[in-house]
Amino acid sequence: MAAESFPMIGGDGPYSYSKNSNLQREAAENAREMLVSAIVENLDIEKELCPISNTFTIADLGCSTGPNTFIAVQNIIEAVSQAFQTKNQSQIPDFQVYFSDHVSNDFNILFANLPKDGKYFAAGVPGSFHGRLFPKASLSFVYSSYALQWLSKAPQELRDSNLPAFNKGKIFYTNAADEVGQAYFGQYSEDLLCFLDARAQELTPGGLMALLIPGRPDATLPANSSLGPIFEPFESCLVDMANEGLISKDKIDTFNLPMYSPSPEELRKLIQKNGCFEIVKLDEQPGGSVPLPSAEGCRAGLETLISNHFGSEIIEQFFDRYAKKVEGRPPLNSAIDGVGPGLFILLKRNL
Amino acid sequence: MAAESFPMIGGDGPYSYSKNSNLQREAAENAREMLVSAIVENLDIEKELCPISNTFTIADLGCSTGPNTFIAVQNIIEAVSQAFQTKNQSQIPDFQVYFSDHVSNDFNILFANLPKDGKYFAAGVPGSFHGRLFPKASLSFVYSSYALQWLSKAPQELRDSNLPAFNKGKIFYTNAADEVGQAYFGQYSEDLLCFLDARAQELTPGGLMALLIPGRPDATLPANSSLGPIFEPFESCLVDMANEGLISKDKIDTFNLPMYSPSPEELRKLIQKNGCFEIVKLDEQPGGSVPLPSAEGCRAGLETLISNHFGSEIIEQFFDRYAKKVEGRPPLNSAIDGVGPGLFILLKRNL
Repeated sequence: MAAESFPMIGGDGPYSYSKNSNLQREAAENAREMLVSAIVENLDIEKELCPISNTFTIADLGCSTGPNTFIAVQNIIEAVSQAFQTKNQSQIPDFQVYFSDHVSNDFNILFANLPKDGKYFAAGVPGSFHGRLFPKASLSFVYSSYALQWLSKAPQELRDSNLPAFNKGKIFYTNAADEVGQAYFGQYSEDLLCFLDARAQELTPGGLMALLIPGRPDATLPANSSLGPIFEPFESCLVDMANEGLISKDKIDTFNLPMYSPSPEELRKLIQKNGCFEIVKLDEQPGGSVPLPSAEGCRAGLETLISNHFGSEIIEQFFDRYAKKVEGRPPLNSAIDGVGPGLFILLKRNL
Repeated sequence: MAAESFPMIGGDGPYSYSKNSNLQREAAENAREMLVSAIVENLDIEKELCPISNTFTIADLGCSTGPNTFIAVQNIIEAVSQAFQTKNQSQIPDFQVYFSDHVSNDFNILFANLPKDGKYFAAGVPGSFHGRLFPKASLSFVYSSYALQWLSKAPQELRDSNLPAFNKGKIFYTNAADEVGQAYFGQYSEDLLCFLDARAQELTPGGLMALLIPGRPDATLPANSSLGPIFEPFESCLVDMANEGLISKDKIDTFNLPMYSPSPEELRKLIQKNGCFEIVKLDEQPGGSVPLPSAEGCRAGLETLISNHFGSEIIEQFFDRYAKKVEGRPPLNSAIDGVGPGLFILLKRNL
């Protein structure tokens, strides 16, 4: 399956992902304790966990350019080391870490920023996590943080004005017709099943997979998406520009953010359908205040996507408007504004 | 050990390595048949060759940005597949390929140019091959083509005017005092032993390592270096510019190309000193005509080195002069001009 790629902005300039990933960083830090205790409690040292002689292999899927990936990997290594020490009194293994993201990710910056302390062997793996990236049974542990909301593509039917899922005047499924949400969920199901199938082949039996995913509460429709309020100013700027004739309204009709945030229920069903993993944990992270992405943060994540669809000539003006629109706005409150919970999922590969 | 890094020029512009590596390509193509038959004859399928379940792992050390590395890897995979088929009638394994070069190598271009045929899992591994890059016993096969001539640094004593190895007015050891050649060989010995020690740990028992190295004949002094004639126009341009006052003569005294081409005898001794490898083959490649590097080719390999030492402001003028100097010159003839043989070495990791 050829997945489209929407790279984070590389380099370390003012709009780079490496300088504008505080939101993701906060989420990862909140998850730290959860991650560490989940690993220590559930890592099953007795099993054949090290695919290569005494080397524990970790993959971060959707690693971007750092620094968040380095922090997460460090946490995982500490937790795994602790598990080896307390459970087995056995020798702590060596670590091999695979940093993976789309081919268009800026691996040069990632490599330049690698910690120099030599605590692990590092490699970069280019490609889409919706397909195979690693040899069979070669991974001890898989991690992915705030990356699985990305779809391989926006569902095609949203762009067809003859279909009920045609997403006229909107760029996402929040408050859209039910058919739009269903189309998104259809694409998400297909993509997640591809993801799970690939990981099932790559993970060693007994290996763990920890996923951090933006979610939404059970018993809600996709239209009440948890991601919606975050992208409201983004959509609003595009609509303003269309109303002023700076971009065509048709272009908005055919633009759809390729992201989805599932409910725990949806996730459970898809994981069960795949059938290769035991669900060890599926927890909601505590809610709280969620700052709107800054213009710089938004640009780091979405510039490529916008400029591919609307043309690079609108970029400066778009982000100027966006900066003004979010200036001084208070952070979103997860209870009041309907921003759904982050989900923490720990899966174990069946033996 | 911190090795200095002299990256090939990245990207795919007119001075890029990916567009200016014909010399290296020709050498690799000449070595193709040798490589393939050496693998088919010597790959010992019975042994524990696949570190991960049914996956044969290959590392190209000093891969640069392609395309040569992709051609070589393809040849290796074909030869290994043939060996598996004919010797064992067993299932052909999956392949994992590690492309490794300095952190400053342009991995983005390398990844963008990866063959799309999905014949192997690909990963990039940043770091110096003078140190450890991979977990213990994790590699089935190591390959390195025309990269091991690079030293981790030019020997320090060449820059000290109080020492007999002071390399005044020269940038290499060709036709220099014996002490200069000895200093180069000292650095080469140290670097190659580091290289062999790291690979001995990384290669699985019975695993093969194929090295293509620019060499010089046995029973010659380093001063009769096989690389010297290739860099004569290069040195000559620098000396011209110093004579015209465009660069300082002191700068030439302290600049030394960090490269060395060993004799088979020197290689044998160092490999025996390491003690972990059986020498399966150590052959001279047939001589012939060796074109002088074009200005573009020279720039792809050496621009970083020159601009770090002499300043980036001389680059354009230097390569203009170089282009004029080599224009119309006939290729070097290995017999007449003293360009030494390429060496093909096949080593097997002891069990």
